Amino acid sequence: MAGRYEPLKSDSLGNNAQNLKPRGTVARRLGIGFAIVLTLATLSVIRIHPSSLSADLGLKSSSNVDSSSDNSAVKTCAPASAPIAHPPAPINPWASLSLDETVQVQKWLEHPKRNLNLTRGDIAQPSDNHIYMIEAYYPSKADVFGYFSSLDPAAIPSRNARITIHHGSADKPMVKDYLVGPLPISSTTRMKPLTDIYHTEDIPFNARGFDARDWTVPQFFSKMAAPLAEAFKDLLGGIVAGLPNDTLITGGSGPFSFDGSFRRLWIGWRRNTPGFFLHPLNLYQYIDVSGTDPSKWEQLKVVYNHQVFDTSESFMEAFHNGSLQRIAPVTEKDADLSWSTRKRIGAQRDLDHLPGPRSISSSGLRFRVDRDLQYVSWMGWGLYLGFNRDMGLSLWDIRFRDERIVYELAPQEAIAQYTGNDPFQSTTAWLDRYFGMGLSVRDMIPGYDCPHEAVYLPATTFATKGIFTRERGICVFEHDSGRPLTRHLGYGENEFGAVKGYELVIRSISTVGNYDYLVSFDYIFHLDGTIEVRLSASGYLQAGFYDAEQGHYGNRIWETTIGSLHDHVINFKVDLDVAGTSNSLLKITTSQEIITQPWYEDDWGDEVIQQKITREYIDNEDDALLRFPTNFQGSFAVVNQNETNKWGVPRGYAIHPGYSPVHNTIVGSKRLLNNANWARYNLAVSRRKETEPSSSSMWNFNLPGAPPVDFHKFFDGESIAQEDLVAWVNVGMHHLPQAEDAPNTRTNTAASSFFLTPVNYFDYDVSIESTNAILLQSPEKPGDPFSHDDYGVRPAHCIPEPVAPFEYFPVQIFDLDGKRAPPATVEEMRRAAELYHRIKMEL
Amino acid sequence: MAGRYEPLKSDSLGNNAQNLKPRGTVARRLGIGFAIVLTLATLSVIRIHPSSLSADLGLKSSSNVDSSSDNSAVKTCAPASAPIAHPPAPINPWASLSLDETVQVQKWLEHPKRNLNLTRGDIAQPSDNHIYMIEAYYPSKADVFGYFSSLDPAAIPSRNARITIHHGSADKPMVKDYLVGPLPISSTTRMKPLTDIYHTEDIPFNARGFDARDWTVPQFFSKMAAPLAEAFKDLLGGIVAGLPNDTLITGGSGPFSFDGSFRRLWIGWRRNTPGFFLHPLNLYQYIDVSGTDPSKWEQLKVVYNHQVFDTSESFMEAFHNGSLQRIAPVTEKDADLSWSTRKRIGAQRDLDHLPGPRSISSSGLRFRVDRDLQYVSWMGWGLYLGFNRDMGLSLWDIRFRDERIVYELAPQEAIAQYTGNDPFQSTTAWLDRYFGMGLSVRDMIPGYDCPHEAVYLPATTFATKGIFTRERGICVFEHDSGRPLTRHLGYGENEFGAVKGYELVIRSISTVGNYDYLVSFDYIFHLDGTIEVRLSASGYLQAGFYDAEQGHYGNRIWETTIGSLHDHVINFKVDLDVAGTSNSLLKITTSQEIITQPWYEDDWGDEVIQQKITREYIDNEDDALLRFPTNFQGSFAVVNQNETNKWGVPRGYAIHPGYSPVHNTIVGSKRLLNNANWARYNLAVSRRKETEPSSSSMWNFNLPGAPPVDFHKFFDGESIAQEDLVAWVNVGMHHLPQAEDAPNTRTNTAASSFFLTPVNYFDYDVSIESTNAILLQSPEKPGDPFSHDDYGVRPAHCIPEPVAPFEYFPVQIFDLDGKRAPPATVEEMRRAAELYHRIKMEL
Repeated sequence: MAGRYEPLKSDSLGNNAQNLKPRGTVARRLGIGFAIVLTLATLSVIRIHPSSLSADLGLKSSSNVDSSSDNSAVKTCAPASAPIAHPPAPINPWASLSLDETVQVQKWLEHPKRNLNLTRGDIAQPSDNHIYMIEAYYPSKADVFGYFSSLDPAAIPSRNARITIHHGSADKPMVKDYLVGPLPISSTTRMKPLTDIYHTEDIPFNARGFDARDWTVPQFFSKMAAPLAEAFKDLLGGIVAGLPNDTLITGGSGPFSFDGSFRRLWIGWRRNTPGFFLHPLNLYQYIDVSGTDPSKWEQLKVVYNHQVFDTSESFMEAFHNGSLQRIAPVTEKDADLSWSTRKRIGAQRDLDHLPGPRSISSSGLRFRVDRDLQYVSWMGWGLYLGFNRDMGLSLWDIRFRDERIVYELAPQEAIAQYTGNDPFQSTTAWLDRYFGMGLSVRDMIPGYDCPHEAVYLPATTFATKGIFTRERGICVFEHDSGRPLTRHLGYGENEFGAVKGYELVIRSISTVGNYDYLVSFDYIFHLDGTIEVRLSASGYLQAGFYDAEQGHYGNRIWETTIGSLHDHVINFKVDLDVAGTSNSLLKITTSQEIITQPWYEDDWGDEVIQQKITREYIDNEDDALLRFPTNFQGSFAVVNQNETNKWGVPRGYAIHPGYSPVHNTIVGSKRLLNNANWARYNLAVSRRKETEPSSSSMWNFNLPGAPPVDFHKFFDGESIAQEDLVAWVNVGMHHLPQAEDAPNTRTNTAASSFFLTPVNYFDYDVSIESTNAILLQSPEKPGDPFSHDDYGVRPAHCIPEPVAPFEYFPVQIFDLDGKRAPPATVEEMRRAAELYHRIKMEL
Repeated sequence: MAGRYEPLKSDSLGNNAQNLKPRGTVARRLGIGFAIVLTLATLSVIRIHPSSLSADLGLKSSSNVDSSSDNSAVKTCAPASAPIAHPPAPINPWASLSLDETVQVQKWLEHPKRNLNLTRGDIAQPSDNHIYMIEAYYPSKADVFGYFSSLDPAAIPSRNARITIHHGSADKPMVKDYLVGPLPISSTTRMKPLTDIYHTEDIPFNARGFDARDWTVPQFFSKMAAPLAEAFKDLLGGIVAGLPNDTLITGGSGPFSFDGSFRRLWIGWRRNTPGFFLHPLNLYQYIDVSGTDPSKWEQLKVVYNHQVFDTSESFMEAFHNGSLQRIAPVTEKDADLSWSTRKRIGAQRDLDHLPGPRSISSSGLRFRVDRDLQYVSWMGWGLYLGFNRDMGLSLWDIRFRDERIVYELAPQEAIAQYTGNDPFQSTTAWLDRYFGMGLSVRDMIPGYDCPHEAVYLPATTFATKGIFTRERGICVFEHDSGRPLTRHLGYGENEFGAVKGYELVIRSISTVGNYDYLVSFDYIFHLDGTIEVRLSASGYLQAGFYDAEQGHYGNRIWETTIGSLHDHVINFKVDLDVAGTSNSLLKITTSQEIITQPWYEDDWGDEVIQQKITREYIDNEDDALLRFPTNFQGSFAVVNQNETNKWGVPRGYAIHPGYSPVHNTIVGSKRLLNNANWARYNLAVSRRKETEPSSSSMWNFNLPGAPPVDFHKFFDGESIAQEDLVAWVNVGMHHLPQAEDAPNTRTNTAASSFFLTPVNYFDYDVSIESTNAILLQSPEKPGDPFSHDDYGVRPAHCIPEPVAPFEYFPVQIFDLDGKRAPPATVEEMRRAAELYHRIKMEL
């Protein structure tokens, strides 16, 4: 097992003496970590290093550097596994449902007593009732606080499931959300509609969740593809026969509806080649898939090379009679299509045959993990993890130095709105929550997506056809930022020193529907109390067909491909609790003033132009839809007016812009009319309510005209002075693609972030506590070296674990009975992943 | 020597067979780096690892991973020293003057034939002539190109020195810049005034460079301090006797002049305690130090607690007669002053007794360095380093994949403008070039300022009293960003993979005058052709005295201390050469359009609101003073209209905003009237001229009304269409200090950056060339692992070099004859470093 990749075991180091210490007081023993090091070393003997030298392995304290150059004496480094954490409570109130709980709920719902007339998702037709979603519904903040303050087992918040059912067989088909609880299932378990978090009653059936069924019904091929098959060959250079050897595929744009009165989408044809997103072929169809009866689905338009036809017949007529203005297709024979793959090309760069630097924690990892409770701690930080289908990873009860800073930090929604002169790009306004940012999380590539020392945690999501578990859904690692966090060079006593810039990174990566981009959600914790929330995008563009008229909408990136301009905006819920839950929104602006002072001489004149600070509390929600000021001359912070630091300043946390602090460019587009109004701002602050848990819902995508969550309705004139507040904060990117977006967008410039950072929250910079730091003193005798204090912390001289042999396995799937399902084929994995973005016709 | 810190030796690996290979074609041998690995290993035996195991050490290729767990077989890793680089030419045209050259020039100038009547800087009085500066003057771009294109030794550009002389003994004292060349000194060496790069004739003497002499003359103490000594004790709680045991010190604000007609400054008293910058005491004096005769220097004003006095006598009278409104001083007896030091406090955090992760290049460093020529290469990048007194490190002839991207990348100036209601803060508008960002570079702290594997390069600067060499003035290291540069998860052939996000960082750190902040200049090179230029600030604030009326100007951070609001803006010269030197400035903006299309149905209406791109070439300098558009809806790029990529798009490099893309808040302040007009914009683009080498000069600080370099004069109506262009790009920070700025500002939020990034420069993303990358293929058989190709690159299993014992030595000083000077005392080091910011009175 030495050095193999290994998801953290729930019992790892469970016998560590440190475990007995209750959390709540962060462990603070100067220099007495030896016991734990010893424990680690002993464990390493037993579990990790069955070598002949094992009896004396790893026995090094941080202050015991072996600088001998005799290799035989060099010990193995402490293992790169995380010691167990000490959560503030023995439960995770935001834990996902277990496989068992999910199956229990599934069976309870299927019971005839529930009278739900359910068909299982794997065989259900649109006209059937079926369960679309089962997942945990989080307890109220009051309940969690009640329990956390007492830790009385009787006060543990009850556990509930949120259920989504597609009522396809109802008289008026619709979608409904329910709560089922308490769990585990018992005689007291009840089911009730979940409505108070939505601004509409029911969810129209035409806005329902996607399912491959929508295009695997035979009518889809017979109505949309078959009539045009002959033209496909000539005009697009490929075939669509509804068979596995098809050389063309199609994909859909969205939203599919405005208000639920219809379900229609544009589909666009593409080469069925690796990187197909970059291979549009300039033929589009508008199709109507409203209602539950596929026999009534139909094609409404065909558009080819800017020519519009109402029917397949009129299109085929023009195709046959020569009136169609054709463009010569680029076929595989004409061109090497490998440009749209990740196949390595070009000369190897100098020294690139050597591995780049690798990060090694020679004395063991410095963060703690409780895998069962999904709790992580590091350097005074502690937090729980949550995970759901819609948006994936969320962080809860984030505490720093024993104070809660953030109750909830969670992505809410991600929009991507395109432009173009073809019907596909110009009608695309994705809301990724619909597709499930959590459902789209995939196993990470060890050593590439996260460093070799990362600890992985699993992510499990429900899908209609089964339950998917990704063992490497989340990674946690400590990262050296490569620069000191603070540093000064002075000659006075204790003026000269540095604190190393270590960070803890918690990451998950979603490949949303595969279509456009991959998003790395990084939560980066700093020693001073700062959190950076950073998104990085990569993956394939959703490209358009290039012709000379497309210039206003993008850059040409291949013979017949344009990278279409689009905006990404991603919203986060930040439920800050700053010194308690009574908080206010402080707006600071800086401006120019001209003043006179009595002390000036004639030489400079008696007027001075200088900066001036204006502090203002925004007292009402209606005034809290905010943009960063021009030239960033000001700031926004959540503060507690009644809790001041030692210097009398209200304690606060600022929302500080990072990379690419943008909001949406377009306002008023019908396809994004009211379903993502949060995207109009850099941030907004509202009073926290249990009935406003999220700024969006998965159905918002298809209901821009009647969104179930209407963000602007959160802002209804209430006071936000000394209330429990939520900041809704955006990151984003105006993405004008360029040749360098092929094959995949680069994360370095496709990144956006914000910081949550203490502002007069403390009395001084608490990172000065760090002992991965140095303090130097000037020599008394000229020319002598500076004396220094490194607090006894030095890298150990030892042999790091070898990097595990690389391996990557497909997802683990469990069926709706909780049994391990047979492994999926590639085509099944593709269909589950690529969804509307790669519709492969089937007979 | 094993693992000791060791500046790269100039002969390191000099016998490496790779050296014989001429540069110009980047070495590109797939998988045949074995010879060099062998060479490294052999060298490691001889030089680095004199251990019993040395005979078989380090013999590992990247594809030969030892996964055995028998420690005795584990070899030592390749040494962390950089192989030698292959510069494009055997010279560095931007090399600093050598010690010998400097001394030669010094002596030549001192020769009676020159008739300069020079006194040596270490003893010169204001009324003497002395040399203030000797440094390299860079050749013209045309000369460099001429040589680089031929490599004909006869075409090597001539070497010249720039000389600054303070003509204190002239009838009309003044400062003059001269060129002396060619070097080495010979019969053809001549001296001529250097004027064509300035907009004024001479430099007024009152604007001259600083020197401690200005306050060590006895008159300084007798006139400014002695008359108030009695009051100091009562009002400030300290003594000023001009003796080493003084408990008070003073510091000056600036600029010292408007147009050179006077030299005056406000001085403010502070506690002489570590972190004295944070200890202002609310007593200020306005002093006149104009001209060359200290006997004529005088005090013009005393301000104490907002009360203004014209003379010491009137002040002392009020002090004695009880009319003075006093404030009780906070004395050392009353308060623990250690808050303003870096002394560690607080409980040790959990696991912080362990060292954090360390970066290890198991098969050796992957970047090359030529220490003699100060040339660095990495992964297709290659560049020369320059270094000067005014602004420190600069980068030259930056090439990527055999094409020049940037001719010069160099910081130009850094402003810091304060505000307040006291005479000190409200009159402060620093221009740090005056103090010498290069002169202020200090040795870096190994392992803290840069990772343990960093390679250090020396930096040498001339100062009036000698020549200072810092062995660790610059560091170079490869850094794992911790996230992939590109990545996609797909199921098609070659769709799934990642490129690791390695970066090369070149860094230097200046502690400018100690007064306010420390600046880390980071140049970060990416695999895709992107460069991030990032500044991070730390160090002490220039704090103000807190009283209730100061609220509009900062935050209280201690009993009597306010962190005063101030703006930092730092300007960079970016001489981009994009596919040659004929370049244009492309401005792209995005806006909203409403269009109709024939293909829409009634369901959504026939109007679409979407984004539209407008491309515009800015053809005239006058239109090229630029701010980033609102909400960053657009971009600026330097492109070559005549050179297109494969898709017909002009090749370009964009100037892409990073962290904190701000410009100056204040416009029109008299103390910054015309000497830093570049700070009004985010960037500006002008035609490149040899007569406009820099946007500032060291004298601009003291001449806001008549700056030697008047940036706006660069913009005089010339065409910038297909010309050689320079982009002047700013980073900056609006700094409203907070309690967490004590003791030192944190680099995480005090950072600003911009990217230079290819935009349609290539036909695709060239980082796909990387072999520190992985490509995965879906399994044919369901459930099987994914197959993968890691290009044979895996971390080696080996024993890293131990981290060197920590050591830090004072600067090496050479006297003006080039002889090693005796080591400086702490007080001498302080005086040289802290300058006006810590004026210690002397009798």
